[in-house]
Amino acid sequence: MEAVIITIGDEILIGQIVDTNSAYIAEQLNRLGIRVHEMLSISDDKNHIINILNNVVREGRVVVITGGLGPTNDDITKKVLGEYTRATKMVTHEEQLAAIIEMTSYRKMMNELNRRQADVPDTCEVLVNRRGTAPGMWFDYKGALLIALPGVPFEMQHLMEEVVCKLQCHFKLAPIYHRSLMTFGLPESVLAERLASWESALPAYMKLAYLPNPVTGVQLRLSVYDELSNMQLQEVENQVIMLKKLLNNALYGEQLDNLQTVAGRLLQAKGATLATAESCTGGTVASLITSISGSSAYFKGGIVAYDNSVKINLLKVPTETLTLNGAVSREVVQAMAEGARAIMQSDYALATSGIAGPDGGTPDKPVGTVWIALAGPKGIKTELLNITGDRRRIIERTAANALNLLRLELLEA
Amino acid sequence: MEAVIITIGDEILIGQIVDTNSAYIAEQLNRLGIRVHEMLSISDDKNHIINILNNVVREGRVVVITGGLGPTNDDITKKVLGEYTRATKMVTHEEQLAAIIEMTSYRKMMNELNRRQADVPDTCEVLVNRRGTAPGMWFDYKGALLIALPGVPFEMQHLMEEVVCKLQCHFKLAPIYHRSLMTFGLPESVLAERLASWESALPAYMKLAYLPNPVTGVQLRLSVYDELSNMQLQEVENQVIMLKKLLNNALYGEQLDNLQTVAGRLLQAKGATLATAESCTGGTVASLITSISGSSAYFKGGIVAYDNSVKINLLKVPTETLTLNGAVSREVVQAMAEGARAIMQSDYALATSGIAGPDGGTPDKPVGTVWIALAGPKGIKTELLNITGDRRRIIERTAANALNLLRLELLEA
Repeated sequence: MEAVIITIGDEILIGQIVDTNSAYIAEQLNRLGIRVHEMLSISDDKNHIINILNNVVREGRVVVITGGLGPTNDDITKKVLGEYTRATKMVTHEEQLAAIIEMTSYRKMMNELNRRQADVPDTCEVLVNRRGTAPGMWFDYKGALLIALPGVPFEMQHLMEEVVCKLQCHFKLAPIYHRSLMTFGLPESVLAERLASWESALPAYMKLAYLPNPVTGVQLRLSVYDELSNMQLQEVENQVIMLKKLLNNALYGEQLDNLQTVAGRLLQAKGATLATAESCTGGTVASLITSISGSSAYFKGGIVAYDNSVKINLLKVPTETLTLNGAVSREVVQAMAEGARAIMQSDYALATSGIAGPDGGTPDKPVGTVWIALAGPKGIKTELLNITGDRRRIIERTAANALNLLRLELLEA
Repeated sequence: MEAVIITIGDEILIGQIVDTNSAYIAEQLNRLGIRVHEMLSISDDKNHIINILNNVVREGRVVVITGGLGPTNDDITKKVLGEYTRATKMVTHEEQLAAIIEMTSYRKMMNELNRRQADVPDTCEVLVNRRGTAPGMWFDYKGALLIALPGVPFEMQHLMEEVVCKLQCHFKLAPIYHRSLMTFGLPESVLAERLASWESALPAYMKLAYLPNPVTGVQLRLSVYDELSNMQLQEVENQVIMLKKLLNNALYGEQLDNLQTVAGRLLQAKGATLATAESCTGGTVASLITSISGSSAYFKGGIVAYDNSVKINLLKVPTETLTLNGAVSREVVQAMAEGARAIMQSDYALATSGIAGPDGGTPDKPVGTVWIALAGPKGIKTELLNITGDRRRIIERTAANALNLLRLELLEA
């Protein structure tokens, strides 16, 4: 079973927005064992859409289309799909209309454009959208499934739940089997060298991929694309065990883990609490930690000490320490971590201070010079980072390194 | 002049990463007047790559390919492009090799895999990569340009600078003209109704697009795809002026503006300072503000008051206020804003307190119930939000609403 994902909209082709929908849909399809053969982005142009449909719609294929279902004139997907599937008329879908009326009355913004969103070609089955006004559409056309979803990710994701259920009924295939291991701290080439002899001895049906991410580290993915026998499944697990040994503590988790979930789990297992004191990361470490539901169990809070007065008054960094060493120094970041730990009464406290740029660098401390510190029951650890990249990269990578410092300490403690 | 962007890599097709490169490249090409006809993502599969190249490579086209240039075995783009362009051998590019040696010696990780990254097909011109080990490659093949870049965004972006220069030399076309206006606070359908009669009177050569984003609001884009006469350019500007009047203060900026840059500019213009006190947003408001270079001129700092003890001890929220009203209440968010303003000695302070979910909702205060407050020289303003969506959406939308509250206040003040 094979799928093609098509995104429709000029906004993607001119680079104004990043297409996050295709990755989401691909992941959902993969779990069902439907392999994505290709992804395409094209414009809101009738001929181009028809042309691509003629190319990719084949018997047995699933074609998922997002975008172009809005109420405004530049959105033509619904009309084009109606024509393509030889619809004879548009029909109002009462359940979607009721949902639209309910949604818009709450916000007092029902109008004719919204009402018309409930009209669909008579060739489709409707996937009722309760998060927005554009219904999803399911066409069973010439042996292929054409599924059109709204481009707003929040609405698309909601409708994908129903799509997944409906696809499960249609096709019953063995899922593609992936195992992902997340690593931090070793560059791809060093990892590859360390794993070389293990990798070359892998059975032919297992495929290893390296997926480096400058912020979250290198992800290793072991995949099997055929139906697995029980023995093969056991073999995959054996290989994963060997791989984990080779990775040692560079390994921080498996698929869906990230440094903040892993650090959170370790904190929770110890019944320990955390605080943050951030200068150059400006709240990013705290926001990563609190992006995890349930983080209130171990995260007490944080201080964004952007101005030196906040470092002095709230975090109790001695003025002399700042004057003598500058804000970006081992001494200041230590004092920040200790200050946060004391003021928040937490077991651990992470601190960051650095030059995120693009301005503010000096020959001594160029942009990307960052100190991080972790204060804990067993004392304080600091690390000097030299990060290349733009402001965003420096901030994100600093935050990741801080979380990793915490993780390694918690593993030892 | 037309372009096709191809992304190569299983990690995109299985949905493990989102392709941000294509949007970046598309934006750069658009500015040059090169219109992106199509974007494609395909796997690291030789036949599929060749097949797609056969389909899309045409005389006069620019084909930009990213991904598949890593040092490991699963990366095959370089080899396939060599074969496709009928290279006779691989040659070592000395400048790239020197760059690799310099980069890797610093990190002590030179090895044979990295060294081989400097070898390229003899049919290409090398774009030296100084941020990573994989060189970019520029093939002038059968009247088309094939440009291969590494998939790591930071490296790709660095090489795109050189690509843009080289493309500028090749083609001298009128750029596609876009004007974007950023709005916040009005749903797409309400905007569309407000603009209906203006939109229907637009000259035929101007195209209006609505680009709703649940976090940053609706972006309106006025585009002209043909070469503009001076009179037409004047007409676009006239239409933009009319549009701005219709939008009134829902308009917050133009292309590349976001709520944090706009709020920052307004603060700086007034010489005013800002502090934050965040509960449910967990540092996201502060991190948005500090994502802007130069924000230290107006941002003093923030407190992430996740635990109630932090609200009480640091922000001086009275214990009774918390007990009587609960943490998610007008009273508490007011006290948080006032506390942050006092402790940070800032002119303005933003506060957030809400239920980001998925747990923690009650019939009275369901998930998505959020209070935001702004304390300023003229007193305090609060707003109750009811946000639908997942945890991330609730956090991001709360942060955007807080920044918009600040913006509207600064416009009035």
